This record gives sequence, structure tokens and C-alpha cells, in this order.
Amino acid sequence: MEMCNDKETLDTIVEEANKHTSQGKVADYIPALSLANPDTLSVAIFQNNNVCTTSGDINEKFTLQSISKVLSLAVALMDLGEEEVFSRVGKEPTGDPFNSIIKLETHSPSKPLNPMINAGALVVTSMIEGRTIDEKLERLLSFIQELTGNPSITVNEDVAKSEFDTAYLNRSLCYFMKQHGVIIDNVETLLELYTKQCAIEVNCEDLAKIGYVIANDGKDVDTNRPIIPLHIARILKTFMVTCGMYNASGEFAIKVGIPAKSGVSGGIMAAVPHGVGIGIYGPSLDDKGNSIAGMKVLEALSERYNLSIF
Amino acid sequence: MEMCNDKETLDTIVEEANKHTSQGKVADYIPALSLANPDTLSVAIFQNNNVCTTSGDINEKFTLQSISKVLSLAVALMDLGEEEVFSRVGKEPTGDPFNSIIKLETHSPSKPLNPMINAGALVVTSMIEGRTIDEKLERLLSFIQELTGNPSITVNEDVAKSEFDTAYLNRSLCYFMKQHGVIIDNVETLLELYTKQCAIEVNCEDLAKIGYVIANDGKDVDTNRPIIPLHIARILKTFMVTCGMYNASGEFAIKVGIPAKSGVSGGIMAAVPHGVGIGIYGPSLDDKGNSIAGMKVLEALSERYNLSIF
Amino acid sequence: MEMCNDKETLDTIVEEANKHTSQGKVADYIPALSLANPDTLSVAIFQNNNVCTTSGDINEKFTLQSISKVLSLAVALMDLGEEEVFSRVGKEPTGDPFNSIIKLETHSPSKPLNPMINAGALVVTSMIEGRTIDEKLERLLSFIQELTGNPSITVNEDVAKSEFDTAYLNRSLCYFMKQHGVIIDNVETLLELYTKQCAIEVNCEDLAKIGYVIANDGKDVDTNRPIIPLHIARILKTFMVTCGMYNASGEFAIKVGIPAKSGVSGGIMAAVPHGVGIGIYGPSLDDKGNSIAGMKVLEALSERYNLSIF
Amino acid sequence: MEMCNDKETLDTIVEEANKHTSQGKVADYIPALSLANPDTLSVAIFQNNNVCTTSGDINEKFTLQSISKVLSLAVALMDLGEEEVFSRVGKEPTGDPFNSIIKLETHSPSKPLNPMINAGALVVTSMIEGRTIDEKLERLLSFIQELTGNPSITVNEDVAKSEFDTAYLNRSLCYFMKQHGVIIDNVETLLELYTKQCAIEVNCEDLAKIGYVIANDGKDVDTNRPIIPLHIARILKTFMVTCGMYNASGEFAIKVGIPAKSGVSGGIMAAVPHGVGIGIYGPSLDDKGNSIAGMKVLEALSERYNLSIF
Repeated sequence: MEMCNDKETLDTIVEEANKHTSQGKVADYIPALSLANPDTLSVAIFQNNNVCTTSGDINEKFTLQSISKVLSLAVALMDLGEEEVFSRVGKEPTGDPFNSIIKLETHSPSKPLNPMINAGALVVTSMIEGRTIDEKLERLLSFIQELTGNPSITVNEDVAKSEFDTAYLNRSLCYFMKQHGVIIDNVETLLELYTKQCAIEVNCEDLAKIGYVIANDGKDVDTNRPIIPLHIARILKTFMVTCGMYNASGEFAIKVGIPAKSGVSGGIMAAVPHGVGIGIYGPSLDDKGNSIAGMKVLEALSERYNLSIF
Repeated sequence: MEMCNDKETLDTIVEEANKHTSQGKVADYIPALSLANPDTLSVAIFQNNNVCTTSGDINEKFTLQSISKVLSLAVALMDLGEEEVFSRVGKEPTGDPFNSIIKLETHSPSKPLNPMINAGALVVTSMIEGRTIDEKLERLLSFIQELTGNPSITVNEDVAKSEFDTAYLNRSLCYFMKQHGVIIDNVETLLELYTKQCAIEVNCEDLAKIGYVIANDGKDVDTNRPIIPLHIARILKTFMVTCGMYNASGEFAIKVGIPAKSGVSGGIMAAVPHGVGIGIYGPSLDDKGNSIAGMKVLEALSERYNLSIF
Repeated sequence: MEMCNDKETLDTIVEEANKHTSQGKVADYIPALSLANPDTLSVAIFQNNNVCTTSGDINEKFTLQSISKVLSLAVALMDLGEEEVFSRVGKEPTGDPFNSIIKLETHSPSKPLNPMINAGALVVTSMIEGRTIDEKLERLLSFIQELTGNPSITVNEDVAKSEFDTAYLNRSLCYFMKQHGVIIDNVETLLELYTKQCAIEVNCEDLAKIGYVIANDGKDVDTNRPIIPLHIARILKTFMVTCGMYNASGEFAIKVGIPAKSGVSGGIMAAVPHGVGIGIYGPSLDDKGNSIAGMKVLEALSERYNLSIF
Repeated sequence: MEMCNDKETLDTIVEEANKHTSQGKVADYIPALSLANPDTLSVAIFQNNNVCTTSGDINEKFTLQSISKVLSLAVALMDLGEEEVFSRVGKEPTGDPFNSIIKLETHSPSKPLNPMINAGALVVTSMIEGRTIDEKLERLLSFIQELTGNPSITVNEDVAKSEFDTAYLNRSLCYFMKQHGVIIDNVETLLELYTKQCAIEVNCEDLAKIGYVIANDGKDVDTNRPIIPLHIARILKTFMVTCGMYNASGEFAIKVGIPAKSGVSGGIMAAVPHGVGIGIYGPSLDDKGNSIAGMKVLEALSERYNLSIF
């Protein structure tokens, strides 16, 4: 696989993509997110031999938001196994919005359709091992630190608190599932953990490294040591394709064809199977909640370097 | 209107109705309710001149549960007026279950369809006036004490606590509505008030008196003094017909034709327009959540005394 | 019951109501209906002793449309009995639109919720007795002729044809129910019958007479002869209250409190229990599909003569 | 890519898979399908150099059913272009059943979510070019004959007629979409074409060849001549992954990871990107409508030869 490894080409692609930011807008439902600069765009491409090509201000930090759903799922699968995890959350994509509650009522049992919609992600987070919130969060953080090789990664407590205070819809989803025995935990405790998980702060280089490990069957970039078992890395890529980009997943799969997961902070983590990992930060979102410029970058890279898995 | 006023006839009707209790079962989702004796059946018919014909153990107490929705609606309408109340809750019957959340997502704005389903009742309770829970509860209790002339009516705190602890579905409804600005209050505080409202304890004579006042355009039985304005009493009767008996309201309207509201405790409060008030307690419920024997009593009375409004 | 029987008062009420026609618009989805004059308003009130007070051009004809649902239900109930009819159509009001298909898929069995929504009305029409369309239509027509004492009532074939050709949504409902065995007939034949039923042409005096018979327990106005059995007349009034005015039935019950059924032609047939029958034609519709001026007339009459059943 | 090319290994895999047929059952809603032998299992793997490894009775014919949705989509995309086709059908997977009508009512505009559910496939078929049914069918058949190199492929008229006569649900979907302008054609004509499309008869070798062309960017096996443009072949593979296996697509993507499309006849057509094409016939279906033994074969092949795209 030939791949972009010169900064100049990447800069050109990024510059081109950045022209589209004005068509979207920054997420405004969380105060902390609404302060982001809509014209920012940073990209990192992580390849073998520790080569990382970047463009834009790669030191700019942002919170994982929905990207964290892939990582909590990895942890839950590693700790509890496929059977246990998928007894409580499904594997099927859905045409409903990521925060919809309808299927929980119409489906019996009221098991969320997949781990990438909020209901499913909340169930997955409730399966992270640990006796206390701190232990559970530590479990997740140390996994992410290992993936990125960046021990300084931590939670942005302001964002976490801001989200926790206004997480009414997620509370609604949780209590609905608690009524039906799908969630057993105390809901407020679970939400505290979940909002902290969403508020874990990274930069686009961190995301690129995470993508690289997932792309390469879960192996550590430097040492070739397995961090995620192969079959779990494959599961993650599958969900990234079928439901990684909210309600534009199908269109994205056609246009770009790279497993990817976006968050409302404007981050995208992409994993080209047996190839590169890509991290993007561009907070101007389209109406589906995906980074407008980020999608353009991935589209350009996929076309130019023939990265589609299809 | 000729009406049953001899105990003997009523005893016969009650005895006949009581044969059906074994077809149902006592509500089991609240521990306190599950202890009820399924074979109990008590009935009180309140007529003019303070005549009250009764059958069964009329001293047996039970909690209002959903019957309280009629009374909180009365209070909200009296305190805030029709316009304000119906800007936040609709007037239309629904074919969905009383605890359904779907319409809150599919309808825009996410205003509950009517005040007799849980979502609507929760909004109504949030409109009871008072600066604290105690004040709001006092507002409701004093209204019920005035309606019944029974100053000893109060909350069964055990039932209230038991319901509060397990009210996950109502929490889910509340947080969903809070997300959409339909509920503004603190949810936990609102639920405390709501579960206390549902746990107000009465006997069937109390219910009969309440029904009598509503039946007779809101006037106090003894003094003819208006307790509820005429147009509000009419609104209450209307909701009792179109949505008073859960998802059997339509069938009940055809078969019995008396405005009535049931609760999962097994109580039914019925108001024959410009006629009698009827209170019933029979905790064995059918699959829709209505008192099996209670429905039979009302069916027999309606047929015998031609009470249908249609 | 005191009731309006002088033309002058009625003219005043009609004149007042007619000021609201500009807020609505004539149904435009059927060419024949779209030609109606939006400012027309005619009203007839039928009382005992053959007194009929009228206002406006009472010779103006219009098609029954959804008002026919009440009459086909009467015929099916008389011919097949309650048990058979309600084994195939429900009795419960619904918050869904009259032409919604969703509940047919989510409910099991896929039995329509009530006979006033299109799905339910189509099932009811499929139960009208007769070996051929002509026989079935004749059955219905002769019933309506008997009710009105007007042997000239017949189908407006142009309207029928126009509706038949564009009845895609009703076809969709029919085929869905045929899939699930709720409709057994040939769908095209059923739709031909149904669109003819909807296109039966009357004037407001005819409607008033129909309302009068239903109001008075099914008895013929002149001879006191029963045309509709008492318990069926009661069923009709019940459905008219719980689902007679589309998705404004609940609000109408509160505001007016008279059993009534409207059609998109702008007709309303109302039946004050044990009182008068009212026929109205005012083709300017509100956004729920009810005659704007017609609703105002009924509101004024109900208030002035205290006609609410509640 | 190493791949199975010895009959012995394939026979072993097939034998093993065949043990599971008793857990499923043959589709019974179409008489012609219900006659299939549930224990039949035939598999063909088409590789480069015209190598085709087979197992079982590869001469047994079966109808394409839903597999045809991939081929009609290919034709529509080639004839009308992406923009036109996707203006009338979406690209997103759905958690709803393949024959669900709900989203057509709740979504606005009522555009089907994707071309693999029935509603979407019907819209796609309505876009096949031709002035008459015969011309349109000929367009599709000649495309399939070219793909397979088998000029004898044609429609099983008995199956087509049997499906046409009972296609009530598809009629319902069509008329619903016609109401909303998504389908413009005459519905009966469209259904005749659609049921003929579904009744096109192939054997598993034909399917393997089709899969091979799609797998290899649309190029003809022998001549390397492009039959399907590369970007359209990619679109087909994408839909096969996100929605090819009914409501088990997500699980199949995880477990097997090969683009595949199944039909209720028991056929599966699979396309390993830049690798082999696989055709399977095993009419015993699981509760999602997929060939039980066919899924097992694909699972075994994917595992053994590492065929997952993820």
C-alpha cells in the first residue's frame, strides 16, 4: 500500500478540505465544545516504522466523545469476552439516530441494537471492570495510554462536568434500560463514568496511533506486542464501518470505505486495515455530527491512495 | 335518574362481580401493592342528600395511583388556567400504552398527548403550585380533603418510598422531557412529589364523594359550594371517558359509558354526569391494569340504571 | 332540553362562525372537493315533531367522506353483530393520524385500532353484506335512505372515480391488512366500494336527520320505529366522541362535548344524546381536517344550549 | 491470497456445514420455494484462471430472490448514475426488518433507507431502463447473462406468478411510496417486473461467477473486460457488507467479514474483494432468512483462508 508520507501533499489535501468548514458548525449543546475554533483542522497519519506525517496544529487537544465508544468496547470485550458483551448489546446497524429511544421500547428484549449508539455505549461502559468509578476509569485510561504510548492522556474534568450536568437524554436512556434490567448499575454513577470517558482528551497524533493499532490487528506499533486481540480488533473495525459515522455510515462506506469513528468534538479516528492509522481534528460538523473537513480529508486520501476496503 | 340505593341490590351486584376476581391478578411491580387481597371488593355509591350506599369492607384503604392524575389535573387547571396547562400537555387520546415513550420522540414538540398517560401526568404534577415539595403536596392534599370532607387523608409513605425507589420508567420519561424543555423542574424532586401523589390513601367512600363532586359540575355535596369550576369538572369527565381506563377506555365507554378513572391499586372513581359518584376497590386487575370486579360492578350498574352518557 | 328553533338565532350563530372560514382551506387532494366554495356554510338542526331549523343554502350537496364510516359501521354491526365486527377492528382511540400505517406493523395481530381511522373503516366496509359491490352499496344506500327519509340519495360517481384513481394510501393500508389476513376481499373491489361509500351525496338536512336518529337511540323520527338497535346507536355515539373529529377529537370533546363525525368534504354530523341531530356543511377545513366554521357553530350551540354530555 | 481450490477440502467443509440444516427451515410463504429439499447444499468457488471448485449438486437451480437486488442496483447505477439513483433511495443500513413500512411513514421524505430492503429494491427496479416490462427484464437478464457467461439464464415463470399473486406486502409498500411520489410507475406493472426479477433462476456456479466479477472491481473473468464500472462494483460490495444479510448483516460482518447477499431461496452470493467469488445454495433458512448451512460454509472459509476485509 502506497501512502501519503510527505507533509507537502498532506498540507495540500488539508488546505483543500479546510475550504468546507464554513458549511458546518461547531457542536453547541455542550458549552466547552461550543468554544472550539471552527476553522481548525489538524491531521496525523501514522505508518509503520513510526513514521507520522502531520498537518495543522497537532498539539491542539480535543475530547474523544463518541470515539471513546470504540475503546470502551475494546476493554469490555477483552475483560468479559464476546459472549457476555453481546448478550447485552446487539451487533446490527440501525437507521435510527444515535440518541433514539424508540427501539428500546419496540424491541423485546430492550437490548440496544449496537455499541455505537448511545444506549449501547452506555451498556458497554457499565461493563468496564472495576469496583469504583475511579478504578473503571483507570482501566480505560491505562488502555488508551498504552495504545497511544502517551501516559499524559487524561480526562478534561470541565467538559465531563458540563456534559454530566446536562446529560438528560442519556439519563432517560439509562433509566429506560434499568427498568428493563439491561443496565444494573446506579445510573448517576454510570453517567459520571460515561461523561468522563467521553471527555478523555487527546490530540490527532494520539488518534492516529490508536487507529494504527486497530488497523494492524491490535499490535503495538513499536514492539509488535499485541495490545488488542486480533478478533477484537476486527470487531472494532466492523462496527466502525457499519455504524461509525452516525447516520452517514452507509454513505461514508461507499465514498471512503475506511473503518472510522467520529465524535461531536470534531475528531475522527480511522483505521485502514493492515495499513495506516489516521487521526483528525476539525470541529466544524455537518448535520449528521461528523467533521466536515475531516470527511473531506479522508475522502481525498482514500481516492488518492486507493484505501477503500471494498 | 333512578339509582341503586338499597344495600341488598348492591350486595347482589358485588357478589356477582366478585366471581371474576380469579381471572386477574394483583399488581406485583410495587411490593406494597402485591400484598393486597385479590378477593376484596368494596363499593360505595354517593347520591344527593348525603346518601351513600355501600357494600364490602368500606374501611379498607388503598392508594390512588393513577386516579390521582385526575385530581392533580384539577389543581393545575384551577391554579394556572386551561391555556397554560394545555400548552404543556395535549388533549388527545392515544392508542399507546400509558407508560410509552415513543410519541415523545416522534412528535414535535415532544409534548405528552394527554394528562392521563404517565408522561402527561408528570408534566401536570410539575405544574402544581408551591415553593417546596411539602407545599405542593399540601396543595393537593388539602384539595382532596376538601373534596371528600375527610381531613385525615394523607400519603402512605411506605408505598411512596417503594415506588420512588423503582420508578425507573418514570425517571426515563422525565429526563426525556427535561431534555426537550417540557419539564423544567429537578427530576428527582418531581418524582418524589409524583410518587407521593400516587400514594395518597383513600377508601371507596372517599372516592365516591370525589366522583360525586366531579359528576355534579364541581359542587360540594353538602353545601352546594363550588369546589371545582364547572368547566374544569367537565374537562375531567371528558378525559375520564376518552382515556380514563388505560388502553380499554374505548371498550369501557361502549360497554359502560360512565366517566371513570382507574388505578393499579385496584381503585376506580366514577362520575355519572349530573348523577352519582361511585368508588370501588378491587385489587385483582385485568391485563390492561383495570380492576376486574370493579369493571363488572360498573357494567352491571350502568345496564340496570341506564347510566351511559351515550 | 331547550334548543335553538328559531332561524334568526341560528342565522346569527352561522354568520359569526362564518368569519373564521378564511383561516382554513378546502381539501385539495381530490379534484372534485377542491372546487368547493370555502365561504359556504349551511346548518340544519333536526328536533322532535319534525321541526328542522336551518340556515344557509341547505340544498347544497356534498359527499359524506369520513362521515360514512359511522354508517357503514352501523350496517356491519346490524348485519354481523358486535362480536364478529370487533374481532376484526378494535375499539380504542389512537393518537396516530387517521391514515397512519405504523400501528398495523407494530401491533400484533395487525388489527386496526378503531373503525374511524381509514384502516378500520376499510375493514368495516369489507364486512357489509352482499354478493356483489352493487348489492353491498345498495345495502348501505338503502340504510341511509331509510335514515334520512330521502330516497334520492345516491353516489356522486365523479367524486368516487376521482378518489378511486388516487387512493394509493388506502390501497397500501388494504394490501398490508390483506397480507395479515385482516382483509380477505379483493382489494380493488373493496376500494371501489369504499370510495363509492365516501362519495355518497347528501345535504345538511339529511345529515341532521341521521344525527337525530342516532341521538335518539336509533328510532325513526316520524314513526318512532327503531332503525338502529339502541345498543348500536350507543356504540356509534361513543366512537363519535372518542374518535369522531380526527386528531382533534379530545379537544372537541372538551370544548363542545357533542358526539360528532366530520369528513374532509367539510360535512359534520352531530348527535346530541336524547336531543337533536345537527348537519353542517362548511368546506373550509382546519389543519386537522375538520370544518372550521362547522366547529365554531357546534361550539356556540353547545355553550348556548348546554349540550355537552359531560 | 491463498484460497481453497481442492474439491476434497471443500467437500469436508460442506459436509460439516450440512449438519446444521435441521436447525432451520425452508421458506414456506411461496409454494414453489417450500418444495425445496432442506438438506441440499451446493457450493462453487470461482477463482482466477477460470478455476471453479465445487461441491454438491451444482446443477441444482434456484431463484435469485433478494440476491437480485444487487444486480438491479448495478443496472440502475450504470444506466442512470449515482446521483439520480440515490436521490430516490438512501444509502444507510437499518435495524428494521427488510419488509418494514414504518420508516416510510416516519421519515420525510418517505425515501427508503437503502436498496437492500424491499421498499428500496422496488424503487430501484422502477428505475431499470426500458419502455416495456419485457424490455426492462431483458435489460436485467442480458446483464446477468453477461456476468455469468450463461446465456440460458431466464425467469422461472411459475415462481414469478406465485410470488406476484401473493405479493400483498410489496404492493402495500409500493402504493405507500406511490402516494408520496417515490414510485411513479404503475404498481401492478412494477410488481410484475419485480417478481420476475426475483424469480430469475441460476445455479451456484452462476452465483460464484457474479461474485467474482463484483469482487474484482467489475471485470469480466476471462477477458478482463469491465462489465461493471469499478466505483459501482465498490458500491455493491459496500451494501452487501452493511445490509446484505438481512437483520444479521452486522453479526455476519463480524463473524465472516465477506461482502455477501442472501435470498430466501437459500442462495448466497459472496464477493471477496480482489479475490474469489462464491455461490452457495442451501434452502434451509435461519430465523433471519439466511441459509443456515451457507453461513457456516462462509464462516469456515473466512476463518481458514483469512478472508475477512476487516
